[in-house]
Amino acid sequence: MLNNKIQKRSSFSNFLAITIRGEFKTEKVGFKNSKKARARTVPIKREVSVMNLQERTQLLRTAVGREKADLAVVNGTLVNVYTGELLEGYGVAVRGERIAYVGKEAGEMAGPDTTVIDAAGKMLVPGFIDTHAHMCFYCSVGEFLRYSMRGGTTTIVTELIEVSFPLGFQGIIEYLESCRNQPVKIFGVIPPMLTLSSGTRKKIIDKEQVRELLRRDDILGLGESYWLPILEEDRRMLELFQETIQAGKIVAGHSAGAKGIKLAAYAASGVRSCHEPITAEEVLERLRLGLYVLAREGETRQDLEDISRIKDMKVDLQNLALVTDGIALKQLVEKGHMEAVLQKAIDLGFDPVTAIQMVTINPARYLGLDDRIGGIAPGKYADIVVLPDLQHIKAEYVISNGRVIAQDRELRVQPKKNIFPAWTRHAIRLTKKYTPADFLIRVSGCEGPPEGGEGSPGESSPSVPGAGATASPATGSIEVRVIDQVAELVTQEARCAVPLAGGRIEADPARDLLKISCIDFRASPGKQFVGLIRGFKLKKGAIATSMAWDLTNIVAIGVADEDLSLAVNRVIELQGGAVVCADGRVLAEIPLPIGGYLSDSPLEEILRQGEEFQEAAAGLGSPFPNTHLTLMTLTSPAIPFFRICEEGLFDIRTNKRVEFVIR
Amino acid sequence: MLNNKIQKRSSFSNFLAITIRGEFKTEKVGFKNSKKARARTVPIKREVSVMNLQERTQLLRTAVGREKADLAVVNGTLVNVYTGELLEGYGVAVRGERIAYVGKEAGEMAGPDTTVIDAAGKMLVPGFIDTHAHMCFYCSVGEFLRYSMRGGTTTIVTELIEVSFPLGFQGIIEYLESCRNQPVKIFGVIPPMLTLSSGTRKKIIDKEQVRELLRRDDILGLGESYWLPILEEDRRMLELFQETIQAGKIVAGHSAGAKGIKLAAYAASGVRSCHEPITAEEVLERLRLGLYVLAREGETRQDLEDISRIKDMKVDLQNLALVTDGIALKQLVEKGHMEAVLQKAIDLGFDPVTAIQMVTINPARYLGLDDRIGGIAPGKYADIVVLPDLQHIKAEYVISNGRVIAQDRELRVQPKKNIFPAWTRHAIRLTKKYTPADFLIRVSGCEGPPEGGEGSPGESSPSVPGAGATASPATGSIEVRVIDQVAELVTQEARCAVPLAGGRIEADPARDLLKISCIDFRASPGKQFVGLIRGFKLKKGAIATSMAWDLTNIVAIGVADEDLSLAVNRVIELQGGAVVCADGRVLAEIPLPIGGYLSDSPLEEILRQGEEFQEAAAGLGSPFPNTHLTLMTLTSPAIPFFRICEEGLFDIRTNKRVEFVIR
Repeated sequence: MLNNKIQKRSSFSNFLAITIRGEFKTEKVGFKNSKKARARTVPIKREVSVMNLQERTQLLRTAVGREKADLAVVNGTLVNVYTGELLEGYGVAVRGERIAYVGKEAGEMAGPDTTVIDAAGKMLVPGFIDTHAHMCFYCSVGEFLRYSMRGGTTTIVTELIEVSFPLGFQGIIEYLESCRNQPVKIFGVIPPMLTLSSGTRKKIIDKEQVRELLRRDDILGLGESYWLPILEEDRRMLELFQETIQAGKIVAGHSAGAKGIKLAAYAASGVRSCHEPITAEEVLERLRLGLYVLAREGETRQDLEDISRIKDMKVDLQNLALVTDGIALKQLVEKGHMEAVLQKAIDLGFDPVTAIQMVTINPARYLGLDDRIGGIAPGKYADIVVLPDLQHIKAEYVISNGRVIAQDRELRVQPKKNIFPAWTRHAIRLTKKYTPADFLIRVSGCEGPPEGGEGSPGESSPSVPGAGATASPATGSIEVRVIDQVAELVTQEARCAVPLAGGRIEADPARDLLKISCIDFRASPGKQFVGLIRGFKLKKGAIATSMAWDLTNIVAIGVADEDLSLAVNRVIELQGGAVVCADGRVLAEIPLPIGGYLSDSPLEEILRQGEEFQEAAAGLGSPFPNTHLTLMTLTSPAIPFFRICEEGLFDIRTNKRVEFVIR
Repeated sequence: MLNNKIQKRSSFSNFLAITIRGEFKTEKVGFKNSKKARARTVPIKREVSVMNLQERTQLLRTAVGREKADLAVVNGTLVNVYTGELLEGYGVAVRGERIAYVGKEAGEMAGPDTTVIDAAGKMLVPGFIDTHAHMCFYCSVGEFLRYSMRGGTTTIVTELIEVSFPLGFQGIIEYLESCRNQPVKIFGVIPPMLTLSSGTRKKIIDKEQVRELLRRDDILGLGESYWLPILEEDRRMLELFQETIQAGKIVAGHSAGAKGIKLAAYAASGVRSCHEPITAEEVLERLRLGLYVLAREGETRQDLEDISRIKDMKVDLQNLALVTDGIALKQLVEKGHMEAVLQKAIDLGFDPVTAIQMVTINPARYLGLDDRIGGIAPGKYADIVVLPDLQHIKAEYVISNGRVIAQDRELRVQPKKNIFPAWTRHAIRLTKKYTPADFLIRVSGCEGPPEGGEGSPGESSPSVPGAGATASPATGSIEVRVIDQVAELVTQEARCAVPLAGGRIEADPARDLLKISCIDFRASPGKQFVGLIRGFKLKKGAIATSMAWDLTNIVAIGVADEDLSLAVNRVIELQGGAVVCADGRVLAEIPLPIGGYLSDSPLEEILRQGEEFQEAAAGLGSPFPNTHLTLMTLTSPAIPFFRICEEGLFDIRTNKRVEFVIR
């Protein structure tokens, strides 16, 4: 129940009855030129549509006094993100999901059935917007929202790439379904699905599926599109840009490391934003090019401190927004979602109103939704956060779509639970039982495939592309390419001489040379590569995950082939998840049965499993603060410089496969 | 020919050949549920479409050096409207219509066939945008552009209401056709067609025609929509709002005089802007409500000086834009178009960069076109003005869609001429010859129609609604309602006792009581009202025009019935125009044969005709600086307080017809 801060004039159930209204429009659309062609209903999200005639008329009537407001927040100090002012004695009258009136007379619009919140001494700020989230990790939307909603985040735009590889187009639709009709607004962006794996590349969503997604109101555009393929005039990517922009939607950029002419060329291609700058100078260069900059403070990167020097550069920051780029569950639970990012910006010395603009109106404009969200103004969605002051971003009330969804960090409305269908729980298409022999690295005298080519004619089991590029002796020393994990996320190519005994290369924990294996579980089930990596420092055992980025691989790292096979088999048994093994037994695991990416366990349980995983991995020697994150990113083509997939090793600078064996 | 400031590396004709490219896409659309149902081709404007894949690829190639720029502006100081910075040594590389690169290395993108402009010591600013123009007055688009283009205005959004009444839906299409493929971008907005006349109201464009317009790329939304009908929940207006916003387009507001709760209610209805505030306080109130404010400096109003105090209020001005709201031809020729408004803003003390934002990026964002125009950035249209400095808005070069269209105020590219079809020259559907007797005001004993009702059963010829509302004596004194022109545009109701002789009321120039007559020329041809007006101070003669706002009337004011009939007959003979008569002869006239609104004469000739009209009207006694403007606005429902049409007198506050005779 609402506590007495809400002067409840009607019963709470009445209030809910007024505000929980489901109006969904559906339209019939058909797949065209798609093998999976069948008619299906595409839901149009109620909460992102423009208001209908009845709502429009009701707002007018409420403002002029012909009808009463459903909710009135009175007597607060309004943070006006349009003018940058603090306006005292201001209130908001809400009708249905929208704001009917903002000003000093909101109290007059309350009737006997109106819920009234007295915000005396409080600040009224618009709901926060995260325009670049990664929600398709670990926990379901509903579990994520249990913690996100209470802090004031009322709009989230999530990448969908994580579900797109293991579950395909239908998986994207299912995930969007789980986002639909939640107490806050959730949008998706279409994954460009850049991948290292040529096998996976053949299975990505097709143009007609992209068009179907672009027709949805809950799809705002194309997700982060890495710059290098664009400069190489990647035809598919440029066509995706074209389709998206032609549909009136936005292209989210990803220009990590780009500058000067190359950055300008990338900007000319039509991208609207970049979330990758890590210094104030990089931010400024992008702002000057007319790009929106989405400054990151989340799981993979915490850039805000370095970027915060932009505030001293005396430039217009209206195209600067704050985002998480994905948030760790621990961070979500302990610090919160966008409220934590905003708090940090203020703590770093950004003017509070400027910082609030960076999580409200600026991102709304970036998304092209500033006619509906991002400010407290008539006609906009009633997404309002009541704060004690502008130094403490601790929401006392969170109002979303006109409803009080949280009060004093307690949820007043529960997020919708979603049960994913059974088919999403069978993403791992591997039936065989892996044995230690599957993780042997055999180097024989046969000729390997040409560099950058496909498949591997190697005789060894598993196939080792590049093994035997030159006729090598069965015993002695051989030089090979090794992934060198030089930082938590960054890898480099290292070249190491390793002993060859009986045509085999073994892991050598003393030199921190571990085996790494990628096994495709879906696009080319069973296709496998085994190589070497250093940096993980495991003394024994193995770790494995199905959450490998940007393809459908189980990636495993280990010392002992027995533990590697055990870890991989356990991931398969779980139909997805992350596992730590040693000495022939499973030490920790995170089951992720939906597409190998998502759990439907409570967030707290997943968090505990994650902590156990990290503890176990650290126990084996891992130096990384989030070993699972470091493991899963090894397959991504968007992080420099040396990566891996079931087809072998890849140099990210050239986007080409390279041989494991040098000579 | 271009002079030597352009380092021409190829022949000028080559340059034109490169840059004059016409690519038009057409799509078949059909009317639905419309009586005029037939398939027609709706042109999609090339210059407002998103770029195609080839253009996108060419920009990339040009920036990275694989291909050469068509045009390079080098070595200037860039006014960066995104960051607010002045960046020295900056240049722009242009390919086709778009910007491929902005930065210090633009010169490197030039090849042997590139036109290079050395902008050393010059400022580079984005092309200016007028988001609220009225171009359908007097001169054709081509003639308007001869003067507008040379000053740096590269995007114009015009109201279309003027052509919509006399020429209907097809007239709108024809007018848009004349705007299409000009050297600058011209967009239209759909006229809401609010009118005093119930006869005209039956003839306005229907919902299917509105939908057809909304599908066009050169229609950005709904034109200025007066606030009072919205607050009265005018169903048709709210449906227009709904259609427009649902189509992803904008609603231009018109909230003259609104404030407080009523203004907030109007904002809640979905309008995106208002161009009517006349003080800084009114501007601030609208900005606070999340509205874009379009500050006017044009023909009907010059608000900028009063509004300029907003600059001292220390508020964020990113939602403030400058517009003309229509510009007098004299002002256009002598001072220019948006460059004059920008110059005035700077002269009034606005920071020059802020002022430039107010005519570039701010209006682009308001229009939802900031991904394409409003800034000098990669991927945007190459709309660039080269200025000597920021205190003198005198364009040395104007580049639009990648072409140099003007240099040192001389056009380098001529606007397209448009010949309107013959049917547009027969808008005046009056065949009878008017005689002095048609302008008699007879008051008889019959009962008039009920107040606010339709038509008039009065026996007099012409019908005088309200005459005889009470049984009046044929001779003596009678109290009547008179339009009191209290300012150039503002009218009030006055009540005057006038002598009645033989059942007739005469004009009395000694008391400044003149006859005013409205004759519908199209919706209800021949329907006429004759009343009284004061303020025009004519001592003799008559003035008449077919340019009456917001309906299809010839409106005439005069002393002598002979001159009234002569003036009206001459307007009919001209098939539209404005006429001054006295002593039985025409003293001056402005022929406006296209819809009674437009001439296809050269602008200079129309200007001269206009000056002769004003001189002649002033000679007869008119105290108004622009007598024709004051005359034509008498029929508008959007200007307070007392108006007229062929049906009688209207009180604007109640939007109701009132009787001429009080008792």
